Amino acid sequence: MIIDMHTHFVPSYFPDMSGRGGGNRWPTMDEISDTSSNVMISGKVFRAVTEQSWCAKRRLEDMDQEGIDKQVISPMPVLSSYWFESKDTLAFSDFIHGQLAELIQTSPDRFYGLGTVPLQDPELSASYIPRLKREFGLLGVQIGTNVNGRPIGDPFFNPFFEAAESEGVALFLHPLQPIGQDRVVGPPSLQPVVNFQLETGAGVTSLITGGVLEKYPNLRIAVSHGGGSFFSILPRLVHGWNVFENLQSTLSKSPMEYAAKLYYDSLVYDDLTLQHLVKTFGYKQLLVGSDYPFIIMDKSPGRIVERLDLPSDQKKEIFRNNSLKFLGVAE
Amino acid sequence: MIIDMHTHFVPSYFPDMSGRGGGNRWPTMDEISDTSSNVMISGKVFRAVTEQSWCAKRRLEDMDQEGIDKQVISPMPVLSSYWFESKDTLAFSDFIHGQLAELIQTSPDRFYGLGTVPLQDPELSASYIPRLKREFGLLGVQIGTNVNGRPIGDPFFNPFFEAAESEGVALFLHPLQPIGQDRVVGPPSLQPVVNFQLETGAGVTSLITGGVLEKYPNLRIAVSHGGGSFFSILPRLVHGWNVFENLQSTLSKSPMEYAAKLYYDSLVYDDLTLQHLVKTFGYKQLLVGSDYPFIIMDKSPGRIVERLDLPSDQKKEIFRNNSLKFLGVAE
Repeated sequence: MIIDMHTHFVPSYFPDMSGRGGGNRWPTMDEISDTSSNVMISGKVFRAVTEQSWCAKRRLEDMDQEGIDKQVISPMPVLSSYWFESKDTLAFSDFIHGQLAELIQTSPDRFYGLGTVPLQDPELSASYIPRLKREFGLLGVQIGTNVNGRPIGDPFFNPFFEAAESEGVALFLHPLQPIGQDRVVGPPSLQPVVNFQLETGAGVTSLITGGVLEKYPNLRIAVSHGGGSFFSILPRLVHGWNVFENLQSTLSKSPMEYAAKLYYDSLVYDDLTLQHLVKTFGYKQLLVGSDYPFIIMDKSPGRIVERLDLPSDQKKEIFRNNSLKFLGVAE
Repeated sequence: MIIDMHTHFVPSYFPDMSGRGGGNRWPTMDEISDTSSNVMISGKVFRAVTEQSWCAKRRLEDMDQEGIDKQVISPMPVLSSYWFESKDTLAFSDFIHGQLAELIQTSPDRFYGLGTVPLQDPELSASYIPRLKREFGLLGVQIGTNVNGRPIGDPFFNPFFEAAESEGVALFLHPLQPIGQDRVVGPPSLQPVVNFQLETGAGVTSLITGGVLEKYPNLRIAVSHGGGSFFSILPRLVHGWNVFENLQSTLSKSPMEYAAKLYYDSLVYDDLTLQHLVKTFGYKQLLVGSDYPFIIMDKSPGRIVERLDLPSDQKKEIFRNNSLKFLGVAE
């Protein structure tokens, strides 16, 4: 009984957004075959995708093969489209959510969904959350680590977090448009490898140092890729909080106390690192994640958890119950 | 018998650089008392420092109190001054090295020194290395994780690394002018806390993905702050190398093989993190580091190593012998 909480969705086609501002930055689909397409952005192939991205039947076959009971599905992060007019982003998101809801409805016992909101307009995002739940049956929102370069912990986003807390939706923090792209030497494929780790760490940190987790203590937030570089930043942040008085005047509690309330997925590709996460945050904060169906995915996300030196009842929490708690779904 | 390999030096005064280009970006010293000063850069207090930064007697007292046998001393990183004309940087570095050599000469059995070179000019840096050794008795070079925004793994720096390898000097990688300064929310004191971790990870990664460690396999490089965020990037980098063919065409071996040849200091402020570093890289790659005498320092750097669950002979390697190997000093 494994819930894979980190999987992504791309619809089989996109609406024509050409009449709106943004031009060819809007995603379009270049069909390659019956089962594969290229997502085109700004005239270039952003990503080659297969029917795994949109086809429920194919997803279920893959899940059965890997022993995955349920998938939590969020849109491919670039589809969040924070860089357009917020009303256009909202219209595009509506389309994505409709398609995602259709997929989920084919097997509602096997799929949960998370949506996306136009975070460049936090008030609009806040007002959209009820629709996300009621119209599309989604359980929460995937949020970027930054929105057009503004870190997600910036107080600018507080209206959204306030609504997310009061509506009780789950939030899944995912990197996009990462920092340090000019600081990596090597091929472009390093960006989702190296920069995503840097970016995720910076994003999680901003939720703490920006006061979001202090102001909205009942938020349920899961972080992708095991928190990225966050677990390497945290000990120095805790030490800094102990040493620098101006950090203590910003945060009433140690950064560790906020960090311990976050959920972290298991997508770290390394047994020692996952062990370290369990030791640092406790097994109750860990969720199974794979990044299905993208090339960088962990094809057998249950195995790294199975190999943890933990009692089987604790592994069961990681496999399933922690994700249900994060999602706010009754067991 | 502990060697603290991460300590810094600031001279008690600076030469007058006002006649050179760069204006008030050159550091000047604003004396506060007989034992304390402010380092001024661009008209602002860059850092408040005490005689611990320049006074051998005071350093020895502190070392005796903490049971530190020897310090490896490198300049405060901002003194590297990569952002001036390279000949001016060289003249300033000459002054720093002269002062540092004087300090070391008061107790050559207790101090080792590392210098700095004008990395904005790799050929000039290469040609300076022999002087660094012979004229000043220094054992190596502290290098920035980036030089004016250019990652240290950029092939631009290869002439320097080639000379460093052939001259057999030790290199100590330290963050400065870190990435992501616009991505942190909170007081400025977060920069040396959060951004240094991001920056160090990016810098170490660039040494691997830029091919420096492949091209110059005999370099001895130690990384400050336990490598910063590098150990959180590495597993995903290894996975990416397995998955993306264009990474394998760049690097002939797995990133882990290059990472395993680096030294990492113990300055991580967290027992679990240090344990994780030992498990990941092995005890032979670990060195004791404190960041003496700055406010963020680990005041008792021996203790976190003492608490490791390792045999005493392995701790002895960490306390002393690994640093001697890194420095290239006969035991």
